[in-house]
Amino acid sequence: MQRSVIREGGEAGSRLYEQIAERVKGMILDRIYRPGDRLPSVRELSRQCGVSITTVLDAYRLLEDQGLIHPRPQSGYYVHAYANLKPPEPMRSTPAALPSSFTRDEMLQSMTHEIDRRGLIDLAFANPNPELLPVAKLARILSSVAREHPEASYGYGPPSGHRAIREQIAQRSFSAGAVISPDEVVITMGCQEAMCLALRAVCKPGGLVAVESPCHYGVLQAIQLAGLQSVEVVTRTREGISLEALEVALCEQRDNGNPVQACLVSPNFQNPLGSCMSDEDKMRLIDISKRYGVVLIEDDVYGDLGFSGDRPRILRAFPGGEETVICSSFSKTIAPGYRVGWVVAGRWHKEIERLKHSFTISAPSLPQLVIAEFLTNGGYDQYLRRARKVYAGNVTNMVDAVSRFFPEECLVSRPSGGYMLWVQLPEGTDSVALYTKALAANIFVCPGVLFSTGDGYRSFVRLTAGKWSPEIEAAVAKLGRMIHQMG
Amino acid sequence: MQRSVIREGGEAGSRLYEQIAERVKGMILDRIYRPGDRLPSVRELSRQCGVSITTVLDAYRLLEDQGLIHPRPQSGYYVHAYANLKPPEPMRSTPAALPSSFTRDEMLQSMTHEIDRRGLIDLAFANPNPELLPVAKLARILSSVAREHPEASYGYGPPSGHRAIREQIAQRSFSAGAVISPDEVVITMGCQEAMCLALRAVCKPGGLVAVESPCHYGVLQAIQLAGLQSVEVVTRTREGISLEALEVALCEQRDNGNPVQACLVSPNFQNPLGSCMSDEDKMRLIDISKRYGVVLIEDDVYGDLGFSGDRPRILRAFPGGEETVICSSFSKTIAPGYRVGWVVAGRWHKEIERLKHSFTISAPSLPQLVIAEFLTNGGYDQYLRRARKVYAGNVTNMVDAVSRFFPEECLVSRPSGGYMLWVQLPEGTDSVALYTKALAANIFVCPGVLFSTGDGYRSFVRLTAGKWSPEIEAAVAKLGRMIHQMG
Repeated sequence: MQRSVIREGGEAGSRLYEQIAERVKGMILDRIYRPGDRLPSVRELSRQCGVSITTVLDAYRLLEDQGLIHPRPQSGYYVHAYANLKPPEPMRSTPAALPSSFTRDEMLQSMTHEIDRRGLIDLAFANPNPELLPVAKLARILSSVAREHPEASYGYGPPSGHRAIREQIAQRSFSAGAVISPDEVVITMGCQEAMCLALRAVCKPGGLVAVESPCHYGVLQAIQLAGLQSVEVVTRTREGISLEALEVALCEQRDNGNPVQACLVSPNFQNPLGSCMSDEDKMRLIDISKRYGVVLIEDDVYGDLGFSGDRPRILRAFPGGEETVICSSFSKTIAPGYRVGWVVAGRWHKEIERLKHSFTISAPSLPQLVIAEFLTNGGYDQYLRRARKVYAGNVTNMVDAVSRFFPEECLVSRPSGGYMLWVQLPEGTDSVALYTKALAANIFVCPGVLFSTGDGYRSFVRLTAGKWSPEIEAAVAKLGRMIHQMG
Repeated sequence: MQRSVIREGGEAGSRLYEQIAERVKGMILDRIYRPGDRLPSVRELSRQCGVSITTVLDAYRLLEDQGLIHPRPQSGYYVHAYANLKPPEPMRSTPAALPSSFTRDEMLQSMTHEIDRRGLIDLAFANPNPELLPVAKLARILSSVAREHPEASYGYGPPSGHRAIREQIAQRSFSAGAVISPDEVVITMGCQEAMCLALRAVCKPGGLVAVESPCHYGVLQAIQLAGLQSVEVVTRTREGISLEALEVALCEQRDNGNPVQACLVSPNFQNPLGSCMSDEDKMRLIDISKRYGVVLIEDDVYGDLGFSGDRPRILRAFPGGEETVICSSFSKTIAPGYRVGWVVAGRWHKEIERLKHSFTISAPSLPQLVIAEFLTNGGYDQYLRRARKVYAGNVTNMVDAVSRFFPEECLVSRPSGGYMLWVQLPEGTDSVALYTKALAANIFVCPGVLFSTGDGYRSFVRLTAGKWSPEIEAAVAKLGRMIHQMG
């Protein structure tokens, strides 16, 4: 920081710390100090500016209140990950106008065939960071579990899943504020089967399901598969589903004679937005669902991956939330390839168990037992702390790269958890064309049209920021050039 | 054998060998020689009966033609496993009268909750014999695969399944007479998911599916889950579905304006009958399906477990069979707990792949890779030879025990593969009551009502004979006493 003395006196004392704060803020916005950087120590800044320690402390506290910087104990003040306010966040939520069904299956299917391309930089699919995952530890546990549990091979295993993993899931729900019994848990093939079974159990064919907009395509697929239609609801980039818009939609469909039967939401770190609902909004959501007789199905698959210390609560944790259905999995946190998810379904438990048995009999045993052992003795919490930190860092890096390489009009979300970014490209940019162009250059992005049954997100892309590397940065730069060329 | 001289002369020479044959047959039926026993050598019998070697040979050949005995090279003649003609086989097939849906979910669900009971003798569920399965070998392969393929944990894996296992499945189809490409195979959660996806892809909601009667409840569940109804067709205990009855049913439903859309059959070792269709019948079935525009879905899950040396062919192997959909799994042969099945769906391939992705994204990776490695280098064929022999023996033991302990009016099937027996109890015996009574004594049987949407099999039970032990024999004896008491 350049040495400069700020003149004291003349105006009120409060002005002085504000001046200091303004100057520091200017340097943050000008990217002299970048997200994650350590700011000068209080003593140092006091000397540089020729002001008192108290004045500097007041200035830093003001910036802290503005969400630009944050203190770390014994270490000083740091620029907040999202202090870089350029580019701003996309604010536009453009739900499909009418209840409708997902129709982009073919595109999605053709995308799944590209996964194995050699040298592909995958910014499209929501895979966790392989370097983070406890792969070696799981392999060791697997060897011993396979030796100690021969019945995991020769038996079918209980339709609801093994007791060991159901107990761990119940225990861990406590950190999300809810008291759940192991007997309520049904193990599924990831969160996707959990949602499919939940929708099937809760809704009548031809029914309507309210969802966030934009909405993860897996949700739209599950709704279509269950013979239902989605009603997309305006969703705010940071705060989650608009409860006002939800209530309007519920009213409207009720008046149309086909009332919405369920609301499938992801209050904690929604995919693709990374939004997180406040406790107040969660309580209001429960209240609305009760008033309209709508079943709440909560997708909590990213719930453990918040960037701040506190694990946000699930709807079950709130008064009146006992009847919500919870869907989740370990695919984002421990091992996608193990395909271990779960559903907790309250009064639909028995029906879900029946459906599960009819469809796949039971889940493979070994992955369940291995994850149960990892949760019990493997240091999941320690691993999670590291994962959250890495994802927060990678997401910041990706926001930063987008801001540097994409056209200035681009907007990008600032998720508070998970590892996905939602990027609004310049008006008129066709993200499907970008997808094709990028794929030809071995870069894989997810076009926005997959996140609605309508066409409202044609100029959006979702980028996954699970990993970060110079190659990924170069790919983002290349993407930026393509978008510039398309403008 | 008691020494006795059969008088030569008087009547025609042909009579003499027939007399010998009658006497030997009598001793078999009286259980002096029991299934599997070695008969006296030709020389010995010739000496005992005071007849020529040629006469004895003629007698043995006659008994061989009657299916009572069989020669083993360098070893002599043996009583055939099914030579014990008491009790006879059940011949009654009583399909539900009208197209209908499975309604015994609750009973089935409550049964799945009993599996873990301590000390339960499980003769109900179709689990393979744990002692036969290559559990230790799989555990060793698992350890090395987990080390060598970290991507199996951190990646989702291709929606259709890993190439390695799809190649092995394609290769092995050759032994069932069919040429299949790995690209046609989609890996599923066992045969159950395979059937569910196939029905969903092939049929329109509200449609009809022809099935064998009795029919495995898993098939009835899958049909119900897909929003379809089953049309049950008379099935012969040894020869499989009656093609005449099938054609009548297809005609009838066509005339009713709701033509049958698919026929889901298990030509090779059907569950619960163990029947096996002849090649001629398989060809006729294909012909009928073409004439009526019905899609054939073949459940081949027991196809590798025939008791005779030749692997029966699947429908795909026959002219015109290219369009059949094949469903199968390794749950009966390698590891039920791995849940690795597959579907080969011809022109429905793309739709099945799409449905699979919508429902469960992809199958767990490690079980696929382990089974692929076992099939490649693990000695699957050798293992299979042993398994077939053991199952043939255990099935014979079970038939034998039923004949000794159950009331004389009981009838029992003689499967040519698999490890299930279909037992007809005395008229009026309620197998659901028997189920409850047996369960109270820690014996688990499968009541016949689960094998139809109607009530035609109330006096039947299915017994699983995968394992055999003195405890199981004692359980069968106890069951027999219960049935006697119920009469």
